[in-house]
Amino acid sequence: MDIETYMQAVGTKARAASRSMARVDTGVKNQALLAIAEVLDAERQTLASANAIDLENGRNNGLEPALLDRLELSPTGIDGMIEGLRQVAALPDPVGEISDMNFRPSGIQVGKMRVPLGVVGIIYESRPNVTVEAASLCLKSGNAAILRGGSEAIHSNQAIAACIERGLQSADLPSAAVQVIETTDRAAVGKLVTMSEYVDVIVPRGGKGLIERISREAQVPVIKHLDGVCHVYIDSEADLLKAHNIALNAKTHRYGVCNAMETLLVAEAVAEQVLPDLAKAYSEAGVELRACDQTKTIISSAGYACVAATEADWYEEYLAPVLAIRIVKDVDGAMDHINAYSSQHTEAIVTENYTIGRRFINEVDSSSVMINASTRFADGFEYGLGAEIGISTDKIHARGPVGLEGLTSQKYIVLGDGHIRQ
Amino acid sequence: MDIETYMQAVGTKARAASRSMARVDTGVKNQALLAIAEVLDAERQTLASANAIDLENGRNNGLEPALLDRLELSPTGIDGMIEGLRQVAALPDPVGEISDMNFRPSGIQVGKMRVPLGVVGIIYESRPNVTVEAASLCLKSGNAAILRGGSEAIHSNQAIAACIERGLQSADLPSAAVQVIETTDRAAVGKLVTMSEYVDVIVPRGGKGLIERISREAQVPVIKHLDGVCHVYIDSEADLLKAHNIALNAKTHRYGVCNAMETLLVAEAVAEQVLPDLAKAYSEAGVELRACDQTKTIISSAGYACVAATEADWYEEYLAPVLAIRIVKDVDGAMDHINAYSSQHTEAIVTENYTIGRRFINEVDSSSVMINASTRFADGFEYGLGAEIGISTDKIHARGPVGLEGLTSQKYIVLGDGHIRQ
Repeated sequence: MDIETYMQAVGTKARAASRSMARVDTGVKNQALLAIAEVLDAERQTLASANAIDLENGRNNGLEPALLDRLELSPTGIDGMIEGLRQVAALPDPVGEISDMNFRPSGIQVGKMRVPLGVVGIIYESRPNVTVEAASLCLKSGNAAILRGGSEAIHSNQAIAACIERGLQSADLPSAAVQVIETTDRAAVGKLVTMSEYVDVIVPRGGKGLIERISREAQVPVIKHLDGVCHVYIDSEADLLKAHNIALNAKTHRYGVCNAMETLLVAEAVAEQVLPDLAKAYSEAGVELRACDQTKTIISSAGYACVAATEADWYEEYLAPVLAIRIVKDVDGAMDHINAYSSQHTEAIVTENYTIGRRFINEVDSSSVMINASTRFADGFEYGLGAEIGISTDKIHARGPVGLEGLTSQKYIVLGDGHIRQ
Repeated sequence: MDIETYMQAVGTKARAASRSMARVDTGVKNQALLAIAEVLDAERQTLASANAIDLENGRNNGLEPALLDRLELSPTGIDGMIEGLRQVAALPDPVGEISDMNFRPSGIQVGKMRVPLGVVGIIYESRPNVTVEAASLCLKSGNAAILRGGSEAIHSNQAIAACIERGLQSADLPSAAVQVIETTDRAAVGKLVTMSEYVDVIVPRGGKGLIERISREAQVPVIKHLDGVCHVYIDSEADLLKAHNIALNAKTHRYGVCNAMETLLVAEAVAEQVLPDLAKAYSEAGVELRACDQTKTIISSAGYACVAATEADWYEEYLAPVLAIRIVKDVDGAMDHINAYSSQHTEAIVTENYTIGRRFINEVDSSSVMINASTRFADGFEYGLGAEIGISTDKIHARGPVGLEGLTSQKYIVLGDGHIRQ
């Protein structure tokens, strides 16, 4: 079968399955999620063997250690998948929720009902646990899923797919509710993102290259974020202890994550007070500093290493122990910098001033905007969504962490008693 | 200046204006809307002269009477634009609304704030009043607008644009908050729908050809509906008087509108009771009937004209006094037909049965789903949105009538007191 025909068949089956899934009771969906967890638990050996093949192929193909690390499905990793399924089963079902029912002067009663999007396509890279995560969120939100993992994880993903299928069957749900693409041919991705008759939304998860390619080719709407160039601004009226702790946490809590701070902005008035201590802490944590001239002078005088930042540094998502630092005049200077360089992911201000804090939260146009909190909180779990399918820095449909609700939409419902338009 | 450079300049100015607009107080936005209304009122003569040029050019170019009709800006049409501006000024401002603020176990407080989308591009055809309608909704929702009207209305639109600019200036708002494209070159549209760095969403309003072309070319998200193939299903447990009134109203209240019924589905059990009277009423209203064999037999026996429907009729949006009728077994038969042929705009059921009504409203996947009400109610004004920029049959972002809220998005806001991630 050629890719075109194969993907067409996948799409047709997904669309049909999505119609059934939209009608399934919450209890049955939860039963399926728990059944998948049980099958995964019973098939630990099968999963390990499949994963071993991927890992060996990866080593033979010279895959980087970081990628091999992501590819590995350890016993703890399998525990995590099982626990994740149970957590999603425990989340409230967004489907069918009715809101804003109001009577209109005409006599009709109008409101909204939350409904699944339909078919969700998810394209991801090496981590095989995404297969379970994505499947569970789509299932719980009443959608059918088409999953396309990285070619390096094909054996692991197929083994997981077989477990998901058994779980679905045991709850009498259509197996096509979750389909894992069986080919590693890249043409399958090209087809997936253009089948707008069968796919309602695409969620790419992975490196910037993957996401850029998909956004360029897609004719189906895409929920995505390209970059996380997140900022912390220490205002002249900041509590300097809070500022120190937040600036340190936002950078050093974890480096390779999209909600880590990449650029620190400091108000001129407090720069000399706050920067030497921070430079000391960053230096102890092994963070390389790249800064504007004024910052560099302060940090160097305090005896810590600091190189001159170039224009490119302000745009950079390091995902590494590297930090750009810039002194700005005030909150307006900080917001000008953020407007110019931010990827609109997450920005935080540290201030005790009511008006400045209120301006920052109102005026900064990013998916998450914070006062006196670390950017590391920008996360579906921390926000109480239970889990996230991704983070969106787009403005349409969903912004910020996208959970179950982001995989649904609202239709209008109208209740009448024979009402006609006059 | 070539189109590329011209559109680039329009985009840059719109993006800059959108940043100012996002911060403007509700009072100032309302002041601008009322000022535009006043300028339009004062410039009635200028508008009429500009419109006369378009109408004469239209006649010379052999424009169809229906298009000339849409193009005309009568004194009543100008009254309507002025009244529309006042109505939009009176609507609540969606921008800045904070919802769902909750404390999380970590101690942070998380919620959502409604914010403008940024830059909205609107592409429309002959009606010059859309220029004012679209501008007012974008303005009130804190967005910058780039408007591209039909080439046949260029003089009218430029005259309206001049009035809008004066209104904006009198409220000290940037004139680039509303830009009306000055060229009739179609390349401008191609550029507009692909400038994703400057434009956040495109709303096309017009014929199917226009919308299809834009959807195909767009790299910016599009809010649209292609077709309104709306259905009314008369269930076996319908109140037949309500059924008669709704079926008649949904078809004959207005023909050329997207929420008019195009196909009537009737449960077999009540077909013989309900169809003859309906056929009589449709015949009196001059509606041509195209039906399945069984329907045709019933209607012909009753002495009314009815032709055989072809497969193409079930897909057709007539926008005219023509109706397709099909007899189905029951609600499942009706939903199967709707799944296969509907454009997911609006569907209504007429029934007194609780379970059947509940199934229809839960299971039919259209932007608006109704019980015992005419499809003609699917409209922003009737739903209480105040006004609509368009209707969406897409599933992402907004479904159904799109008002001010559809021109906004929600960002997350986080309030802390020095909180860091553990």
